[in-house]
Amino acid sequence: MECKVESLSINYKTLEEFTKFREIGLQELSMMDELETNMVENDSESPFYGIYLGNKLIARMNIYRRDARFDRYFEPAQDYLELWKLEVLPGYQKKGYGAQMVQFAKSFGVPIKTNPRVQSHNFWEKMGFEKVTYDMERDLGENPLVWYPDGVTEQKH
Amino acid sequence: MECKVESLSINYKTLEEFTKFREIGLQELSMMDELETNMVENDSESPFYGIYLGNKLIARMNIYRRDARFDRYFEPAQDYLELWKLEVLPGYQKKGYGAQMVQFAKSFGVPIKTNPRVQSHNFWEKMGFEKVTYDMERDLGENPLVWYPDGVTEQKH
Repeated sequence: MECKVESLSINYKTLEEFTKFREIGLQELSMMDELETNMVENDSESPFYGIYLGNKLIARMNIYRRDARFDRYFEPAQDYLELWKLEVLPGYQKKGYGAQMVQFAKSFGVPIKTNPRVQSHNFWEKMGFEKVTYDMERDLGENPLVWYPDGVTEQKH
Repeated sequence: MECKVESLSINYKTLEEFTKFREIGLQELSMMDELETNMVENDSESPFYGIYLGNKLIARMNIYRRDARFDRYFEPAQDYLELWKLEVLPGYQKKGYGAQMVQFAKSFGVPIKTNPRVQSHNFWEKMGFEKVTYDMERDLGENPLVWYPDGVTEQKH
């Protein structure tokens, strides 16, 4: 694969590509709204990263760096990445693009938390992600998975 | 309907009923684990509420009261309910049980936040729930819907 993961800019091209993905919601509508009402510049940075094959966006995800003071998952408490909406388009799945995206996120060298659909747990386990000890007040019915870089362990409550 | 919403106790009967619902995850597994390792008493209170028809649990949800100091949704900031995993079993849907569950949650008289699947937004809108203004750092790709009791409005950031 010579394709690479790149940061996606907020523009009409990106937003049009987004409509092909299953997990469309308030976040994407809000980005469209911000663009149309000039609340953001065309080509502003977004929290989305993706892989283009030619002119077509075939994989995407969000990563957002949370400050250590919000960390309730990792020991020692530290900055970590929230990763969400990792999705590879049908027809491009099982070719390693999802793994490439996760490797890219790991390359920041900080712990990662994600909250995937239960059905995708096999993929995440292959990528080295683990379940946390369920904490109702923190997790509220979510099924978070986390990745611990060397030297990082689970935060106990 | 003479059935009523009741608080569910953590016991083997409840956990067996839970296996019939679609949204099973870490939370239910954790409850089973706590019961089996005597970390909780049989018949401890759970955050789950449900409707029994005879011996069968046909609807369930979680409600959890969050302290005002964590409130980033409501003005004035106040205690509010997080509601999740509202689910009515197939065959019992479209009979008003879901609405009865939400009415029960509203009867606490505090604002409610939920994070439903996008596909269920019509139901929630009928129940008087509204979209919030998307805030990436707070919502992280979620699509929260909220219910404002009289005198409560959206918290601006």
